[in-house]
Amino acid sequence: MESSLLDTAVAAASLYPAAARRRRAGSTASFLSCSSCSSRDCRVSASYSHSISRMLSGVRSAARKKLFRADPADLLGVANWPETGGGHQQHWWTALEHNFVLEATDDEYGGVVVDADRLPADKAAFARSLAASLSYWKSVGKKGVWLKLPVDLAEFVPLAVKEGFKYHHAEESYLMMTYWIPDEPNMLPANASHQVGVGGFVINDQMEVLVVQEKYHGSSLDGVWKLPTGFILASEEIYTGASREVKEETGVDTEFVDVVAFRHAHNVAFQKSDLFFICMLRPVSSEIKIDETEIQAAKWMPLEEFVKQPFIQEDHMFQKIMDICIQRLRKCYCGLTPHHVVSKFDDRTSTLYYNVAEPEDVNCSAA
Amino acid sequence: MESSLLDTAVAAASLYPAAARRRRAGSTASFLSCSSCSSRDCRVSASYSHSISRMLSGVRSAARKKLFRADPADLLGVANWPETGGGHQQHWWTALEHNFVLEATDDEYGGVVVDADRLPADKAAFARSLAASLSYWKSVGKKGVWLKLPVDLAEFVPLAVKEGFKYHHAEESYLMMTYWIPDEPNMLPANASHQVGVGGFVINDQMEVLVVQEKYHGSSLDGVWKLPTGFILASEEIYTGASREVKEETGVDTEFVDVVAFRHAHNVAFQKSDLFFICMLRPVSSEIKIDETEIQAAKWMPLEEFVKQPFIQEDHMFQKIMDICIQRLRKCYCGLTPHHVVSKFDDRTSTLYYNVAEPEDVNCSAA
Repeated sequence: MESSLLDTAVAAASLYPAAARRRRAGSTASFLSCSSCSSRDCRVSASYSHSISRMLSGVRSAARKKLFRADPADLLGVANWPETGGGHQQHWWTALEHNFVLEATDDEYGGVVVDADRLPADKAAFARSLAASLSYWKSVGKKGVWLKLPVDLAEFVPLAVKEGFKYHHAEESYLMMTYWIPDEPNMLPANASHQVGVGGFVINDQMEVLVVQEKYHGSSLDGVWKLPTGFILASEEIYTGASREVKEETGVDTEFVDVVAFRHAHNVAFQKSDLFFICMLRPVSSEIKIDETEIQAAKWMPLEEFVKQPFIQEDHMFQKIMDICIQRLRKCYCGLTPHHVVSKFDDRTSTLYYNVAEPEDVNCSAA
Repeated sequence: MESSLLDTAVAAASLYPAAARRRRAGSTASFLSCSSCSSRDCRVSASYSHSISRMLSGVRSAARKKLFRADPADLLGVANWPETGGGHQQHWWTALEHNFVLEATDDEYGGVVVDADRLPADKAAFARSLAASLSYWKSVGKKGVWLKLPVDLAEFVPLAVKEGFKYHHAEESYLMMTYWIPDEPNMLPANASHQVGVGGFVINDQMEVLVVQEKYHGSSLDGVWKLPTGFILASEEIYTGASREVKEETGVDTEFVDVVAFRHAHNVAFQKSDLFFICMLRPVSSEIKIDETEIQAAKWMPLEEFVKQPFIQEDHMFQKIMDICIQRLRKCYCGLTPHHVVSKFDDRTSTLYYNVAEPEDVNCSAA
C-alpha cells in the first residue's frame, strides 16, 4: 500500500483539514466486481450461483495479497473448477479476472487512492481494469481518484489519459494522475507551488561583507558583487541551507543568526512562485576557497563599498534589502529566529521562526 | 517557441544565477542533421553533394517555420528533384526527413529546450527524431535537455522514457521530462518544493478571537475551535490569501496587519515541504456567515477561553504560536509587514516582508 502518500496526507491534514481537501488514510476497501453479469452468457443455476459467491468471497480476501500475480486456481485454493462445464467456468473467470476493480483505499473525502504496487502487469489488463474501476467508483459515488504511475509503467500513462485522468504532479520516479468524478468544482489539493531560496548576509568584525561574483549570470550582473544565494535542498531547513550555500560557494563557515526579511514573487520558474529568505549569518572562519564550477571570485568587501555598487543603488529591491540588513547590524531590528517545536497533531518536529525578543537576546536591542 | 518557460527562467536566474542552474533564453539554434550519411547507400557524386548541400541549406532555414508540416518539395521551393536518379533522391529525402533533430533552443548552461509546439505528429517520427536528436546533442557536447510533452501527446511519454528521459514535473496540461547528458552530477534545477499555507489570527476590540470548527477533520480535532487556515492559491499573495481564507470560512472581512511567525515542516504532502504563515488580521466586519461545505461552525470566542482549550495547552507548537500572538497583541512584538518592491533585474514587482519599525507604526512599541 502506498503508505508514504497517505501518511503524509494525514500529517498535513491536521493543519489544514478542510481547506486543504487532502487525502487521508481511511478504511481499506478492496473490492472486486464482475461487470459482465448482465451478459446473456452468464445465466447460471442457483447452485452454481452459490459456488460463484463462495468463489468471489475467497477471491476478495486473497486478491488483496496477490491480485494479478497468481494463477486463478491458486488464488481460489482449489484444484478443480466446479463441475458445471468448461465454457461457463472459463467465462466466469475471464469476466472476473478481466474486470477486477483496481485495488484502492478509500480516503475520508469520499475519494480513492489506487494502490500503485498492485497495478496490472500489462496494458490491456490495466485498460480494462481502469475502465471497470471508474465505472464502479462512479456508481458508488466516489469523488477524487488518485493514480500514481511508477516510471516503469509509463506505457499506462496514455491509457489513463484516454480514460479521462489528468496530470497532477510528477517526480523522477512517478507521475501522479487524478480523476474528479462528481459534477462539482474539483476539490483535490494542488501540489507544491513554491521554490524556496536563501541569501546569506555574512559580515565580520571589520564590517566587511562576504560577496561573490558568479560564473554564469545575465549581462546585467557583469562585474557585480552579490551575496551568496541558492535554493534549499529537498527537506532542508532554511537555517542549514543558508550556511551550506555560503560554505559551498566561498568555503567560509558560518552560524545562522536569523531571517531578517523574505521576498515573495510569482510566475518565476515553471510558472511557480518563489520565497527568498534573507538570512543574517555570523562567520566562524575567514579563509575563502571558492567553488570554481559556479563562482568566478569571492572576497570580503567593505560594507560601504558593497552598498555603493550601482546595481544596489539603482535597484529599489536590493536597496531595501540592504537597508534592512544594516538596520539589523545596528541592532535596531529583530529578525526571526528558528525554534524547534513539536506538535502531537502531526507527530513531527518542525521549525517555528519568530522574534519574540528574549531579554538575553543580545542581537536585539528592542528587547 | 515555449517563451513562458524560458522567460520565467530568465527572471528567476537573476536572483540565483549560478546555484540555481536555471535555463535561460539563449540564441536560437535550429539545426538539422542527417544521421544516415555513413550508410553505404549514401555515396554520392561531388556535383550531387553540392546539390544536397544547397538543399540542406534551404531546408534548414525553411524548416524553422514549418518542419514536419510541409511537403518536402514545397519546403525546398523546387518543383523537381535534382536529376540524379530517383533512388538517391528519395533516399536522401527519407534520411533527412526521418532523422531531423528536434527543433530546440540553446540555453546558457549548455543545454537545450525542445520546442513543444514543433514536435512530430506521430509516434514513429517522434521516436526516430528523439533518438537522432540525443545522438546529435551528445556529439556537440550539450548537457541538459528539457522536453515538455503536452497531455495530448501522452503517447510520447513511454517513448521518451525508453530513450532515457526522466520525469521532472507535471501540471494538468503537460509533463516536463529531462535528460542529463554528461557523466557528471546532474545540475538541472528542481521544481517547486513547498506548499504555502496561512492562518488568520483575527481579534476584535472585545478581545475575542474568530474561531472555527471544521466539518472534515481527524478525531484529534473533535470539538476543537481553531483559527481559520488554508492554502494560498497559485500566484496569490500571503497578505490577500489570509484575508480570503477568513472571508470564505466565516464571512468576516479583515485587513492584513503582519506576519507574526512562520512554521517550516518537511515531508508533509507528496513528500514536499510546507511553510505556514501565522498572520495577524484586523476585522472590519463582525457578522459571521460560514461556508457550510467546509465549516461546521464559527464564532467569536473570548481569547482566554480559546487558549485554555486542551488542544492548545497540551501542544507545544500551538501553545508557542498563541504566546507569540498574545505578545503581538500587547505590542511587545513586531511582525513582518508586506511592502511592494520593484527590481529591474527580473523586471517584476514582488512583496518584501520585513519589520523595520517605522516611528509611525502604532502596532509596534519597539519603534
